[in-house]
Amino acid sequence: MPIDLAAAAAAATELRARRPLVHNITNYVAMTLSANVLLALGASPAMVHAVEEVEDFVSISSALAINIGTLSPRWVDAMRLAAAKAVLLGKPWVLDPVGCGATRYRTSVAVDLAGMRPAIIRGNASEIMSLAGAAGAGGKGVDSTMSSDAALAAASGLARKTGAVVAITGETDYATDGGELIAVGGGDPLMPLSTALGCALSATTAAFAAFRPPLEAAAIALAVFGAAGAEAASRCNGPGHLPAELCDALFRLDADMLQRRATIAAAEFA
Amino acid sequence: MPIDLAAAAAAATELRARRPLVHNITNYVAMTLSANVLLALGASPAMVHAVEEVEDFVSISSALAINIGTLSPRWVDAMRLAAAKAVLLGKPWVLDPVGCGATRYRTSVAVDLAGMRPAIIRGNASEIMSLAGAAGAGGKGVDSTMSSDAALAAASGLARKTGAVVAITGETDYATDGGELIAVGGGDPLMPLSTALGCALSATTAAFAAFRPPLEAAAIALAVFGAAGAEAASRCNGPGHLPAELCDALFRLDADMLQRRATIAAAEFA
Amino acid sequence: MPIDLAAAAAAATELRARRPLVHNITNYVAMTLSANVLLALGASPAMVHAVEEVEDFVSISSALAINIGTLSPRWVDAMRLAAAKAVLLGKPWVLDPVGCGATRYRTSVAVDLAGMRPAIIRGNASEIMSLAGAAGAGGKGVDSTMSSDAALAAASGLARKTGAVVAITGETDYATDGGELIAVGGGDPLMPLSTALGCALSATTAAFAAFRPPLEAAAIALAVFGAAGAEAASRCNGPGHLPAELCDALFRLDADMLQRRATIAAAEFA
Repeated sequence: MPIDLAAAAAAATELRARRPLVHNITNYVAMTLSANVLLALGASPAMVHAVEEVEDFVSISSALAINIGTLSPRWVDAMRLAAAKAVLLGKPWVLDPVGCGATRYRTSVAVDLAGMRPAIIRGNASEIMSLAGAAGAGGKGVDSTMSSDAALAAASGLARKTGAVVAITGETDYATDGGELIAVGGGDPLMPLSTALGCALSATTAAFAAFRPPLEAAAIALAVFGAAGAEAASRCNGPGHLPAELCDALFRLDADMLQRRATIAAAEFA
Repeated sequence: MPIDLAAAAAAATELRARRPLVHNITNYVAMTLSANVLLALGASPAMVHAVEEVEDFVSISSALAINIGTLSPRWVDAMRLAAAKAVLLGKPWVLDPVGCGATRYRTSVAVDLAGMRPAIIRGNASEIMSLAGAAGAGGKGVDSTMSSDAALAAASGLARKTGAVVAITGETDYATDGGELIAVGGGDPLMPLSTALGCALSATTAAFAAFRPPLEAAAIALAVFGAAGAEAASRCNGPGHLPAELCDALFRLDADMLQRRATIAAAEFA
Repeated sequence: MPIDLAAAAAAATELRARRPLVHNITNYVAMTLSANVLLALGASPAMVHAVEEVEDFVSISSALAINIGTLSPRWVDAMRLAAAKAVLLGKPWVLDPVGCGATRYRTSVAVDLAGMRPAIIRGNASEIMSLAGAAGAGGKGVDSTMSSDAALAAASGLARKTGAVVAITGETDYATDGGELIAVGGGDPLMPLSTALGCALSATTAAFAAFRPPLEAAAIALAVFGAAGAEAASRCNGPGHLPAELCDALFRLDADMLQRRATIAAAEFA
C-alpha cells in the first residue's frame, strides 16, 4: 500500500473507529495539549508515570509515547520500565528526545532510551543531529549552520543504528527507516510559536503506530498534523488560539483537508 | 430546602460572595483548567502538594479536592496527610479516583483514600464501579456491558460503605448518599473530548462543599457544570475552545442559564 | 535613558531580534502559559528542573525565572543550584515568591531564595509584604487592610535588604530599587480571574532582564504585560479566552499598543 494522502485519510478514519489507548510519559508543558490532541483525533489518552504502575499500564495500552522534555531521575526510571515492557509485549513506542544536546544529562538519557528499540524517534533537526552524533550514528552533533542535508544524513544513520524510523520536523518534514525517505509538507510558520505542538505530534505518531507500521505511521502523523496545523493557522491572527484551533481541525480532519493542506512524497537522500 | 435549580443558582451567587479558598492536590493535566474553572466561578484556587506544607494549607482552606490522575508515592503521602487533616478540622474533601481499576497501584490508592472519610467521591461509571468492587462495597468491578443501573447500585453501596456522597458523571449524572438519589441533566457530547473537565468538576464540587451539605453540593456542582458545559458547547465547532468557553459560561452563570441548560430531579434506584 | 513607553517599545523590538533563551523553574500550573507568552514575545523558553542538569542549562541561558508556586524539596534544591550558578555567571534571575506567607515552608523557601541575589523579585502586595516581613526587611507581614503605601514601604525595604529590584502587581503596578519608584498602569480587572498570568509576567520580566538593567527590565515587563493584557481583555467576554488573547496581543505588541494601553511614570514613596 502506498504511503500517500489517501492512506492518511483512511488511517485517520480507522483511528476514530479503533480509539487506541495511548500511554504518555511526557513533559509537564505538553500533557494537557497532548491529551486534547489525542481526544480530538479520536484516540484515548492517558498520562501515567509512576514506577509503581507504568508496566501495568503499558499492558492495557495500544502504544506508548515517551518525551523527555521535563525529565528527572524518577521519571527516567519509569520511562525505562515502560519502554522495556512495551518492547517485551510487542507494542510500539515513540521517543521524543526534547532538547537533546542542551545538557549532558539530557543527551545521555536520550541516547540510553534510543537504544531501547523505539519504533519511531521524532525530533527537530537539532535534536536528531545531536542524538545521532551522541549515539555514534554519524553526524557531528549540532551545527550552527545546520543544513537539511546534514539532518537527513543524521536521521538515516540514527535509523540504521537504532532500528527506529526517524521523523524530523522543520519547514519540510521527513520520515525515514534508513532506506526509504518520505517528505511531508504542511504546517505553518505560526506553529513554532505555540509550545508543545511537536510533543503533541509525537503523541499523535504513537496513536497511528498502534495500528500502522512505523514508517507509514510516522509519515501519516506528519501529514495529519501538518494539514490540521495549516488549517488551524488559517483561522488565527497570532499563536494564541492555535492549540484550540488545532484540536478543532483534527476533530474535523478528512480527506479534503488533507488534500488542501498537506503533501506526502517519496524523496531522495542528497 | 429542596435541591433544585433555584438552590443551584442561589449557591452560585453565594459562592461568588464567599470566595472559598479551595486546596487542590490534583493531576498535572488538570491543574490549569481546575484553577481557571474555580476562578471563573468566583472561588480562590490553590495547588499545593508538598508533604512539608499540605497540612498547613488545609488549615487555611475551606475545602480540599484530591485527584489521583497522575499519582506517585510522594504525592499519595501528601494526599493522605491532607485528607486526614481536613477530617480532623471538619473540612470537607472530595475524592476523584481517576482511572481506578486501570492498574493495581491506582486501585489500591483509591480504595485507601476512599476509606479516609471523603465528603464526596466523584467519578465516571467505570471508576465508581471499580472502586466499589475493590472496596468490598458490592459490584463486580468494571463490566464491559456496564449499565447505568449497575453503576447506580455500585454508587449506593460505595456511599453506604464510606459515608461519602457519590457522584457519577455520564450521559445523565447522579448523586447519592446511599439513600436519596438525584439525577442531573445537562452537558454535551463534546465534553468527553476535552481533557480534565471531570477533574475540574471535582474541584467545583469541593468549592460548593465548602458551604453546602455534601449531597446538595454534589448535585449543585453537577448542575452548574452541566449548564455551563452545554452553554459552552453551543458556541463551539469542536472541542478545542471548550475549556475557554466553559470558563466564560461559568463566569456568566445565572438562574436563567441553569433553567435553560440543566435539570435536577429526584430519582429512584431501579 | 529614561524608562518610558518608548523604551518599552524599543526593548520589545530588541527582544524579538535577540530571542533570549529564558530558563524557567516554575510551577505546574504556569508552565504552558509561561512558555507561550515567551514565544509570543519572541523569546525562547525552556522548562528545566532536574538537579542533574539545571546548572548546565543556566550556562547556555540568558536569564532565569524561579517560581515557587508548586514547590517541593527536590525542586527547591534545583532552584538553589540554578540561582547560585546564575549569580556565579553574572546572569540575571527573577524570583516569583508565589503564596509567600501562606505556609511556614513556603515562606522559609522564599526568604532563603530572596537571599541568593535575585536581580528582580516580582509578587503581589500580599506576597511582597509577607516576604519583606519574614526577611527582616521591615513591614509587619500581611495585613488584612493592606494599603498600597504599606506594600510600597515593604517593597522598598525588601529591595534594600536583598539588592533586588522589587516589582509589585496590583491595580497599579510598581517597580523599585529601594531608591527610585516607577508606577506602571495598564491591565484589566479580568486578569486576576485567569490563572498564572502573574507567573507568566515573571517569566517576561526575566526575558527583558536578559538585556536590560533590572529596574528598567521590571518596569518594561510590567508595561508590556499591562498593555497586552488590556488589549486582550478588550476582546474577551470573560476570562476564558484571556490567555490566548494575551499571547496574540504580545505577538502584535508595538509602540502604538503600548501608548494606548499602558502608562509608565516616576512616582514618590508616600
